[in-house]
Amino acid sequence: MDVAAIQRDLDRRRPGTSRYVSAREERDRVEILSGLLDGRTTGAPIAMIVKNESARPEDYESLKELFRPGHADYGVYKRYGIRDHRGGGRLSGRETVARVAAGSLAKQMLGSAGIEVSGFVRQIGNARAESVDLEYARKSELQCPDPEAEVEMKRIIEEAVAARDSVGGIVEVRATGVPAGLGDPVFMKLDAQIAWGCMSIGGVKGVEIGDGFALAGMRGSEANDQFKDGFALETNRCGGIIGGISVGSPIVVRLAVKPTPSIGQPQRMARIDGSVVEDAIGGRHDPCLCPRVAVVAEAMVAIVLMDAWLRRSSDPFGFKDR
Amino acid sequence: MDVAAIQRDLDRRRPGTSRYVSAREERDRVEILSGLLDGRTTGAPIAMIVKNESARPEDYESLKELFRPGHADYGVYKRYGIRDHRGGGRLSGRETVARVAAGSLAKQMLGSAGIEVSGFVRQIGNARAESVDLEYARKSELQCPDPEAEVEMKRIIEEAVAARDSVGGIVEVRATGVPAGLGDPVFMKLDAQIAWGCMSIGGVKGVEIGDGFALAGMRGSEANDQFKDGFALETNRCGGIIGGISVGSPIVVRLAVKPTPSIGQPQRMARIDGSVVEDAIGGRHDPCLCPRVAVVAEAMVAIVLMDAWLRRSSDPFGFKDR
Amino acid sequence: MDVAAIQRDLDRRRPGTSRYVSAREERDRVEILSGLLDGRTTGAPIAMIVKNESARPEDYESLKELFRPGHADYGVYKRYGIRDHRGGGRLSGRETVARVAAGSLAKQMLGSAGIEVSGFVRQIGNARAESVDLEYARKSELQCPDPEAEVEMKRIIEEAVAARDSVGGIVEVRATGVPAGLGDPVFMKLDAQIAWGCMSIGGVKGVEIGDGFALAGMRGSEANDQFKDGFALETNRCGGIIGGISVGSPIVVRLAVKPTPSIGQPQRMARIDGSVVEDAIGGRHDPCLCPRVAVVAEAMVAIVLMDAWLRRSSDPFGFKDR
Amino acid sequence: MDVAAIQRDLDRRRPGTSRYVSAREERDRVEILSGLLDGRTTGAPIAMIVKNESARPEDYESLKELFRPGHADYGVYKRYGIRDHRGGGRLSGRETVARVAAGSLAKQMLGSAGIEVSGFVRQIGNARAESVDLEYARKSELQCPDPEAEVEMKRIIEEAVAARDSVGGIVEVRATGVPAGLGDPVFMKLDAQIAWGCMSIGGVKGVEIGDGFALAGMRGSEANDQFKDGFALETNRCGGIIGGISVGSPIVVRLAVKPTPSIGQPQRMARIDGSVVEDAIGGRHDPCLCPRVAVVAEAMVAIVLMDAWLRRSSDPFGFKDR
Repeated sequence: MDVAAIQRDLDRRRPGTSRYVSAREERDRVEILSGLLDGRTTGAPIAMIVKNESARPEDYESLKELFRPGHADYGVYKRYGIRDHRGGGRLSGRETVARVAAGSLAKQMLGSAGIEVSGFVRQIGNARAESVDLEYARKSELQCPDPEAEVEMKRIIEEAVAARDSVGGIVEVRATGVPAGLGDPVFMKLDAQIAWGCMSIGGVKGVEIGDGFALAGMRGSEANDQFKDGFALETNRCGGIIGGISVGSPIVVRLAVKPTPSIGQPQRMARIDGSVVEDAIGGRHDPCLCPRVAVVAEAMVAIVLMDAWLRRSSDPFGFKDR
Repeated sequence: MDVAAIQRDLDRRRPGTSRYVSAREERDRVEILSGLLDGRTTGAPIAMIVKNESARPEDYESLKELFRPGHADYGVYKRYGIRDHRGGGRLSGRETVARVAAGSLAKQMLGSAGIEVSGFVRQIGNARAESVDLEYARKSELQCPDPEAEVEMKRIIEEAVAARDSVGGIVEVRATGVPAGLGDPVFMKLDAQIAWGCMSIGGVKGVEIGDGFALAGMRGSEANDQFKDGFALETNRCGGIIGGISVGSPIVVRLAVKPTPSIGQPQRMARIDGSVVEDAIGGRHDPCLCPRVAVVAEAMVAIVLMDAWLRRSSDPFGFKDR
Repeated sequence: MDVAAIQRDLDRRRPGTSRYVSAREERDRVEILSGLLDGRTTGAPIAMIVKNESARPEDYESLKELFRPGHADYGVYKRYGIRDHRGGGRLSGRETVARVAAGSLAKQMLGSAGIEVSGFVRQIGNARAESVDLEYARKSELQCPDPEAEVEMKRIIEEAVAARDSVGGIVEVRATGVPAGLGDPVFMKLDAQIAWGCMSIGGVKGVEIGDGFALAGMRGSEANDQFKDGFALETNRCGGIIGGISVGSPIVVRLAVKPTPSIGQPQRMARIDGSVVEDAIGGRHDPCLCPRVAVVAEAMVAIVLMDAWLRRSSDPFGFKDR
Repeated sequence: MDVAAIQRDLDRRRPGTSRYVSAREERDRVEILSGLLDGRTTGAPIAMIVKNESARPEDYESLKELFRPGHADYGVYKRYGIRDHRGGGRLSGRETVARVAAGSLAKQMLGSAGIEVSGFVRQIGNARAESVDLEYARKSELQCPDPEAEVEMKRIIEEAVAARDSVGGIVEVRATGVPAGLGDPVFMKLDAQIAWGCMSIGGVKGVEIGDGFALAGMRGSEANDQFKDGFALETNRCGGIIGGISVGSPIVVRLAVKPTPSIGQPQRMARIDGSVVEDAIGGRHDPCLCPRVAVVAEAMVAIVLMDAWLRRSSDPFGFKDR
């Protein structure tokens, strides 16, 4: 197990690294609590801890009795009858640190089976990455795979920041080297699990596989991926998954990411007594969630694929050899 | 428990009812095996059985060693090392009968709490329902809520049938009367569960909540649903869910449905030995999956909402009354 | 998959076969609903159904508002607020039919790995089987492995029947051929799972592994199973499990079975209004539960072992071969 | 939430407090990581951490290639192909710290519903507590409820220590104030869950409910608990549970605890190469596990009861009020 690789993934997600993400300074150092002996896993659960270092609960004091637009504040209050108004908890993007750490471990295991999973930013505003250089994306401040589009994306973010506003976008995850036969019918379909994992990331409002919503407007003769030879497919409109099971083509997932709800403009918020106030909120927030969602989405797809792999590899009674 | 209501929902999903769905004749009679005493539930599991009556395994005999485009055939073969080539099983749309029966029961319980869940066809080809009359949809052969759009949708389906082809579309599910506070943070987010449930339906390739993919192109100031009064929201771009928790507005879900992969035109299929053959397949299939997916999606959203409701209703130790 | 073998196990559990078990006549024919293709499992769930044929709900009519001693009647009423007073449901021993069918399938898989699981009656009243002939037990009306003890056991049961009473006893399950390394630490310990499975059988009030309660009176120097050679143990006081993980010795489990609560003598029962009545109850019941519990306990241990086997067989990424 | 009460329970389990338990010095300070806001739970998971402070891995260095009798060493090695030979992990009694912390929290919730759960030592060697003073037990070094028996128990332990040996015993857990109607039929029976929870504690080899194994020798007329008035039972041979559901009487559970396997006498151990060596092992171990198992068993029963309570309290759709 390569702990340094986990740290590298955490660093990709980490805030405070550029002006395109939140200015909050978190070192996000991962510490392994259990499950390792001389660098090898022992079969015991692998417990990792990443501590919050730059929490500033006082920033949130004014929010104690206020429900912000676009935030879970009001729903959480109704859900539990109490709301932890301080930032940095499981209702903030902070909880995705754990996902990235787990996903990084999943990627190590998948990597040993030849499966690579990569998340990147496909679109911000109307700037769309047309070419995909994964190596570039991995180092890009915006996790963008197209240097040209990246320039435009940065401009769009800067404009939004200047207007005390935020922007949304589209994140894409690709997995290559995935063999045919991962996933189970009915409820454990591979795409159902991926949709669950991706939609559980804060700010994500849509998930599509392969050509996704574009397939709704096609005819079957156009949408079907026909066979070429040796079970390879001529096209990949299905995004690598048919009937919930992988078919050997790259898996392609796209996520719709809403603009960060925390903006500097005045908005109509609700007070706990039901009255409405118009005000602007401070705090340190990302002008665009996409660069960080890309890293988290990559982790979630990796976790789902690892789980599917573990379920697949099963001939425990050796029936195949008979 | 109203068994007749379950039968009515099964009848909405049932094939053989019009020329817009599969010609296969199934009566789909539900039989209750356990859990009822004089029409009341007893706390025991409710077991229901719906038998396949019009199975024609011989129709599928020619497919024994053939993998069809757009079908899970090849993936399943790689997954299990054996493939049940006969139709009507859990790899066919037939398995959704069980979902509809369970969903119908969930709707009964939700109904007693004032929650209504309705699935309908929003779009087929480029024909889009602009008005939503749920009463109409429930009786429409296409589950379409807009009589005008329905005419156009039928035309599009008929054209596809004439061309031995199929069409895709968009299904929408709405839930009204949903109180704020359903769903849990992180992995049990309400939208994550809905995405999982909807993407697990055969033929679905995308799921979005509220304005979904359209949010990707907005700014925060436009995307945020601001408060009006008494915790009501001015808009519903969020589709009733923020941060994975319901906010009291109607829940809105849209599903991208691919065209039925079974078409009458010749296609390049793979044989089990890896060779490719071009041929057309017979069988009794839906020219468009949407009308039936609408009923199934409604069931899945109802099941997820019921589950969230059960998790919410929890003050078992009476702490709130202290 | 050998369906006949499943039927044979169901026949061992079946009532109406001798005067030592309930006179209720049930054929207990198993029917396979799914999961098989030409006798081979397909990876789909294996659904089996065994129908109740000799249900006589009218026998139970008088019990509608009566809570019997030693039965779950009162607890169930408090649990659900409604009680299904008719026999043959999941609150009767009838539900164990399903366990035996599933356990029989588990035994087939375990058998292919050289693991044999056998349940038998160790003791009834003060008659104790001193020798263990598993072949004999399998055909014995009492599932008793010792012909001599069987004679005495039958006499004890007959005496109880004559007195309109019932008797308890001890059931034992042995599993041989179990390799070392099954089971997981902490909550998934092999013995914890076995205890759960066995205590979930109606009428079972105690479970012990190996020397069990006798170990409480020993010293460590006496209780420890020391190593002999090649990892074999000199004794088997541990019953094949140490620290929740199998050690390669036979697994030995014993269950305390209470006397059948349904007896022909008058007893003080409660009415639904809280009053107490003294009366005798009719019906067709086993004078001793042990012979049938032996078959069910064998099934439960087999299911737990199969589950542990499935969890163990995991080197899905091929790390061992590096 | 009373954090001090959790600490008090941890202190009851803690080593190093008397010469009757392991001399290892652990402070066992609990730290709350999440889930609390101003002393109230927020609905977020409650994470607690207790750090190992007195780990001495060097004590275990000599055990690296040695499998001890009565320990999981060999089984674990076969299970995972690697064994973490250092003490203090999840294969040692150390993992029960977490159970006690969780159980203490469960007890707080149960206490608010009038349910009290108490674990104590019933027997060590042939010294048996005949009277039960729970207040006394809670402060007793041996968790023994009978001052007279305690003197004898201490003598038995001292004798064993002098002989470089260990002793076993019997632990009992009682829960009072448990209403009728907790637990579910079939696999989620209350006693099945208790058996699972108790048997999952290291060193426990048997579990019985109520009169347990003694019921095996009784007749039904003797074993049945008849009704007295107002649904109360005349006797409590059933230990508060019938058919897996609580009946309103105190719940009584007894656990058979084997002698500590770690003794100072020479024993025949296996080396990793399959050879057998005779040697004595050092280290800091309990001469008798019972006092600490009593605290852990209390926690496990509390956790199971809380879970059953949570499942019971369910009329989420308000059907009862109609």
